[in-house]
Amino acid sequence: MLYLTRRERFNAAHRMYHPEWTDDKNLEVFGKCSNPNWHGHNYNLFVTVKGEPHPETSLVVNLKELSRVIREKVVEPLDHRNMNLEVDFMEGKIASTENLAMAIWEVLEKEVQVLGVKLHCIRIEETENNIVEYYGEINHGNY
Amino acid sequence: MLYLTRRERFNAAHRMYHPEWTDDKNLEVFGKCSNPNWHGHNYNLFVTVKGEPHPETSLVVNLKELSRVIREKVVEPLDHRNMNLEVDFMEGKIASTENLAMAIWEVLEKEVQVLGVKLHCIRIEETENNIVEYYGEINHGNY
Amino acid sequence: MLYLTRRERFNAAHRMYHPEWTDDKNLEVFGKCSNPNWHGHNYNLFVTVKGEPHPETSLVVNLKELSRVIREKVVEPLDHRNMNLEVDFMEGKIASTENLAMAIWEVLEKEVQVLGVKLHCIRIEETENNIVEYYGEINHGNY
Amino acid sequence: MLYLTRRERFNAAHRMYHPEWTDDKNLEVFGKCSNPNWHGHNYNLFVTVKGEPHPETSLVVNLKELSRVIREKVVEPLDHRNMNLEVDFMEGKIASTENLAMAIWEVLEKEVQVLGVKLHCIRIEETENNIVEYYGEINHGNY
Amino acid sequence: MLYLTRRERFNAAHRMYHPEWTDDKNLEVFGKCSNPNWHGHNYNLFVTVKGEPHPETSLVVNLKELSRVIREKVVEPLDHRNMNLEVDFMEGKIASTENLAMAIWEVLEKEVQVLGVKLHCIRIEETENNIVEYYGEINHGNY
Amino acid sequence: MLYLTRRERFNAAHRMYHPEWTDDKNLEVFGKCSNPNWHGHNYNLFVTVKGEPHPETSLVVNLKELSRVIREKVVEPLDHRNMNLEVDFMEGKIASTENLAMAIWEVLEKEVQVLGVKLHCIRIEETENNIVEYYGEINHGNY
Repeated sequence: MLYLTRRERFNAAHRMYHPEWTDDKNLEVFGKCSNPNWHGHNYNLFVTVKGEPHPETSLVVNLKELSRVIREKVVEPLDHRNMNLEVDFMEGKIASTENLAMAIWEVLEKEVQVLGVKLHCIRIEETENNIVEYYGEINHGNY
Repeated sequence: MLYLTRRERFNAAHRMYHPEWTDDKNLEVFGKCSNPNWHGHNYNLFVTVKGEPHPETSLVVNLKELSRVIREKVVEPLDHRNMNLEVDFMEGKIASTENLAMAIWEVLEKEVQVLGVKLHCIRIEETENNIVEYYGEINHGNY
Repeated sequence: MLYLTRRERFNAAHRMYHPEWTDDKNLEVFGKCSNPNWHGHNYNLFVTVKGEPHPETSLVVNLKELSRVIREKVVEPLDHRNMNLEVDFMEGKIASTENLAMAIWEVLEKEVQVLGVKLHCIRIEETENNIVEYYGEINHGNY
Repeated sequence: MLYLTRRERFNAAHRMYHPEWTDDKNLEVFGKCSNPNWHGHNYNLFVTVKGEPHPETSLVVNLKELSRVIREKVVEPLDHRNMNLEVDFMEGKIASTENLAMAIWEVLEKEVQVLGVKLHCIRIEETENNIVEYYGEINHGNY
Repeated sequence: MLYLTRRERFNAAHRMYHPEWTDDKNLEVFGKCSNPNWHGHNYNLFVTVKGEPHPETSLVVNLKELSRVIREKVVEPLDHRNMNLEVDFMEGKIASTENLAMAIWEVLEKEVQVLGVKLHCIRIEETENNIVEYYGEINHGNY
Repeated sequence: MLYLTRRERFNAAHRMYHPEWTDDKNLEVFGKCSNPNWHGHNYNLFVTVKGEPHPETSLVVNLKELSRVIREKVVEPLDHRNMNLEVDFMEGKIASTENLAMAIWEVLEKEVQVLGVKLHCIRIEETENNIVEYYGEINHGNY
């Protein structure tokens, strides 16, 4: 079993905001991250897939194909966009990095299966100090 | 003559937008960077000052003082803010990294003089691929 | 289950030194790392916690709270200090990165539980080439 | 159980090439990576071992010894070399990063056992966007 | 006067080799860098241009245009190529990073003038430890 | 004129301390950096030399020679040492990064001349946020 990771990047605006709370409550819980005029980040996205090396090519997955899928399904919808207002797979969700990681997992899980590998981890670096990793619901406890 | 650089970081939203142009013209010139719903970045700011080492302490400048000034005057107004809507020193300017570098120069030039050093360079890394440097109007041609 | 990592930094002096050994034995085993006049590092500390996203906020943990705890309990006692002489939780221990990782685990384990998450990993980068990770005694074999 | 990682670097040439395929087939499957005139990379190699801290020294492994073994057995044969033509442990294998990770595992597995630790992971960063990790055949499924 | 830098990357094979020397002489002068079977690097290229902000857009140069020119004229000819055998603008030159920087300067000097800016610096990072910068023949002594 | 930069690293202990001041005065001016029990850093040193490419080899300087000189004269005396107590060329000086940069300049200026190049810049990164650059006394005003 080999693990292969592809990094992609995107720049997006967001704010932390719970629609059923007052602005004051949002500010109290989320602090400056709830600024109504938005702020933004350069996100680093690391998609890790796992699989066996193909007997003929010794490749786990065709990197060009993997990269193409991630760009089309994840990076293009997010890059230079507003995560709260414009991204289909974030609709109705608080624009936290945690939710973003789980949403990207849902978008990519089947896409990478078509390429012959299993999705292993979605890792998002929001800043150089804040990182979220999601391994999917199934491997609870094994990591 | 020694050069001392302090790095600070801030996360902000912006869009490239010329108020006298139509949305189509803005889109044509600035591309996805003019998205009306904003996008954002993790900005790396490098402030370089120059001076002679102080005869007693051998320090060019007290780093704590330099850092305090940069945070109060530049980082706090920008961090988790919308550069087009909320930042005094960017008012009436297109929110380009070029304009941001020149505006920060204007804000800091006198502040660092009080600390006994001259401002040498404002460098802003918008992404890991895009960097702007401004050395002030006076040293035209020497660099 | 989501994993959230917070990076913090501190600069400290230390030496590798076994109090029951002669200086020669210390030098033989630890090499230049046992220099009696100390040396030091910029340590990168990564604290990883795990938990479920909170049903209302979709946050695993309030990052501001997590960061505050790490700074108060770990970074402030270590930063600009001598790890062998001045740090309570390293008293009586050889100042190895391994011991430091285990000591920080002990300091933080209960603190993060109060914030509603479980401590998953203490990772310390001593230099860009040397890294130690500790996952606690309980998850032996699962990683 | 503690995990200790040592980074080493090497610069090598390679091409993706299946000896039983035509040049056209190689080009079709591997794209520009199959260029017959070679291309190359700065490889970052991360070797992770695991073990218990030694009761006397509190070290998991003597880093100098670990580093020496990795350099002699892995870095020297690869650095400033052609991975397809000159590296014993890659002979008869397609020069993919996947195969390289598995070959380095085989080379190091017993070597680090002599130092009192178990090999846990071989991680190779081919570029800043492409990363492969191999955990050995035995811990299939646990990671 | 503002300085704007664009980073691009390419992966190439090369060897240090003087055609009028014997293999032994090449080995003596260039060491392992003259390995006849090639080695390679992930090159980081930083192209810095300088100019005044455009009065209407406040941009020094259209980044998309600058990036397109660098990719077409420099990155595509070099990426996944053999610098000694396949790169027009390196023909007849020793494949040193110094020569590469000067050759890229020649290629780009007029191209960026068309975009309204002057070429200021070609910086190439061959490894994280080896860096070459070229400022063109004209500004001898000023930097 | 080409500029060639070599990075080397060292880990050292130091404290900011003026011998003619009281401990209270030292603490007041230098803050936690004057901790009597020392602290330390991983220093990144960048040595930049300038010269013309050699007509035969197209190399500005033999990198192995440059690296050897820097290691012998600068890195070995500093690495795993106490900058205040053990480093000849820092004797009688406050252990500031500014003084360190100027002292390294003095050590290397003639050494690199023997290799056929001129010393251009000593750059020291004390942390990822604090950087000092020294260009020698002669090129005052030109940079």
